[in-house]
Amino acid sequence: MTDTVAAPRPTIAVIGGDGIGPEVVAEGVKVLKAAAGADAFEYVAYDLGAERWQRTGEVLPDSVLAELAGVDAIILGAVGAAPGSTAIPSGLLERGLLLKLRFAFDHYVNLRPSKLYPGVVTPLSDAVVARGPIDFTVVREGTEGLYAGVGGSLARGTSAEVANEVSVNTARGVERVVRDAFERAMRRRKKVTLVHKHNVLVNAGGLWNRIFTEIAAQYPDVTTDYLHVDATMIMLVQDPQRFDVIVTDNLFGDIITDLAAAVTGGIGLAASANINPTGAFPSMFEPVHGSAPDIAGQGIADPTATISSMALLLDHLGRPAEAAAIERAVDADVAQRGTAARSTSQIGDAIAARVAG
Amino acid sequence: MTDTVAAPRPTIAVIGGDGIGPEVVAEGVKVLKAAAGADAFEYVAYDLGAERWQRTGEVLPDSVLAELAGVDAIILGAVGAAPGSTAIPSGLLERGLLLKLRFAFDHYVNLRPSKLYPGVVTPLSDAVVARGPIDFTVVREGTEGLYAGVGGSLARGTSAEVANEVSVNTARGVERVVRDAFERAMRRRKKVTLVHKHNVLVNAGGLWNRIFTEIAAQYPDVTTDYLHVDATMIMLVQDPQRFDVIVTDNLFGDIITDLAAAVTGGIGLAASANINPTGAFPSMFEPVHGSAPDIAGQGIADPTATISSMALLLDHLGRPAEAAAIERAVDADVAQRGTAARSTSQIGDAIAARVAG
Ligand SMILES: CC(C)[C@H](C(=O)O)[C@@H](O)C(=O)O
Ligand SMILES: CC(C)[C@H](C(=O)O)[C@@H](O)C(=O)O
Repeated sequence: MTDTVAAPRPTIAVIGGDGIGPEVVAEGVKVLKAAAGADAFEYVAYDLGAERWQRTGEVLPDSVLAELAGVDAIILGAVGAAPGSTAIPSGLLERGLLLKLRFAFDHYVNLRPSKLYPGVVTPLSDAVVARGPIDFTVVREGTEGLYAGVGGSLARGTSAEVANEVSVNTARGVERVVRDAFERAMRRRKKVTLVHKHNVLVNAGGLWNRIFTEIAAQYPDVTTDYLHVDATMIMLVQDPQRFDVIVTDNLFGDIITDLAAAVTGGIGLAASANINPTGAFPSMFEPVHGSAPDIAGQGIADPTATISSMALLLDHLGRPAEAAAIERAVDADVAQRGTAARSTSQIGDAIAARVAG
Repeated sequence: MTDTVAAPRPTIAVIGGDGIGPEVVAEGVKVLKAAAGADAFEYVAYDLGAERWQRTGEVLPDSVLAELAGVDAIILGAVGAAPGSTAIPSGLLERGLLLKLRFAFDHYVNLRPSKLYPGVVTPLSDAVVARGPIDFTVVREGTEGLYAGVGGSLARGTSAEVANEVSVNTARGVERVVRDAFERAMRRRKKVTLVHKHNVLVNAGGLWNRIFTEIAAQYPDVTTDYLHVDATMIMLVQDPQRFDVIVTDNLFGDIITDLAAAVTGGIGLAASANINPTGAFPSMFEPVHGSAPDIAGQGIADPTATISSMALLLDHLGRPAEAAAIERAVDADVAQRGTAARSTSQIGDAIAARVAG
């Protein structure tokens, strides 16, 4: 018998967060274990979110941020109080935790796939659905634009107030995310649509256009087109089949992906990944939906979006077969969903069983 | 016999513009004459748009702007080249003509009603449509925000480029449009939804929130709520019935109203008014759709959106009965539309006949 030193297991930070966050994350981890093995990863839970802030006044202490920088991936449930809540200042947790992590860990690819699973209820008409399969992905820039936190108010609180928000766009920032979109398109149906509003936002739009055109020239196999963000709205409900990869800025991406989620069956199903493709910092995986305080604690939240985000996590960690197993299990589960309500953990159990079986 | 001096007739400036613009405007004027009488207004045609720019290099000469300032209302078809066209710099006409007029004439209420007419094909499912009538209006701020033209680029054209766009929001600008929205709600179903993204855009969002709350207190009969712009996307396709009046900023309004148009049967039907409620400058009436160069010159564009905009024009000029006559005629025409294609002028004729008859 020889002494063996076990290879260190990758560490995954688990931030349940607020509202339904912890409930859906528990199911995500359940399915992750079913796919990768119970001992594949070390899981470290982090207690962050509204409850901690109310108890301690801390959102994301520097020491915790430093610790998180060393993990291999982060799972995030949801953060944030209900809009209109007065207990927590608007956006405090979103900016202090979620956006802070996206920016600190340079998650410049905010990846949001949208696929209409067979059998899923969509708000789109039969005629639109009959046009063909809906399967596209949005590559949303994650570290610039109007999310930069640049802006301010003059004469705040008075009738003379002027409040500004600045969208900051850099050539480097646009270049790296557009390139990522083209790389993804090469592994898909080889089409990239740039969405912007360059007829009005001439500076930012001009930059996006220029870089997009430059990179497109390097991918002669990829078809490209351009849509204004307003026209994109129309296409997403009239002809979503036209999209393969959409690349766009941070705010347009935020808006587009909620509509994309809605037309493909709702944000209960929409997965997302905040990726740092360089590996310099851990990437973060989270459902598109929020903390949904209205249904928290009842065990009725749909964990599917979080579970699908686990497939993105496995893919990112170089485990495509396990990722595919989760995707197949989700496909199969979703396809046979009737109207009978299942609890959060029943859905997690069912998908975990399919992954294992 | 006494000498009578005819009261001067109100003057309406007619800017057909580009692409399908002149075609749909001709039908709008036809129906306007049917409703108000052939001699009710004096019509003055203005030759502005891509063709003039290509011929003369002029977009909107100061002398023309000064003349337009003196008319009673403006009808605008559409301006702008096809996206991706290289003949005309991107946005030149949009900014130099359309936005120039909105800003010069202080059109701070960009009004965009959305109504799903019975019988109209919508991309929404039967289940969503069955929830009830869809009938809401968006009050889009028209003179501030990211449309202010504030921004710029550093190191333009290089790999070090930084391109900024600034959203400028003033208390005065927000106050006047929010108040207008509440006034409209009082004449409708008494509900106003503020749409913004105040969890991220804290400065602008904070200002909008504060003013909205202040004004809401003055309208105790009006129910209010707030939605983030991303969540609004979901509601517009899952539950558009929840909306009565939406008030929002310039860019969010641009995005929302294209989606609103799409879910209520397409931009072929979506009317809009750029209103200066003070009367200091003429208001401007235009379809939401663009110049659609791909179908221009074929007589197949749907003029309904322009015709409905004429109802908004008559309303604005204090002729509600004539406005209602156009609305009824459009309702009736749209309700009996089958799949048989009619030409642009056939649709105009049919609606004009209903107005007259
Ligand atoms: C919670 C909020 C800050 C966040 C965003 O705007 O990015 C969310 O809407 C999302 O899309 O992940
Ligand atoms: C053409 C363009 C400048 C314009 C806008 O962005 O306002 C259009 O999309 C609209 O909605 O009227």
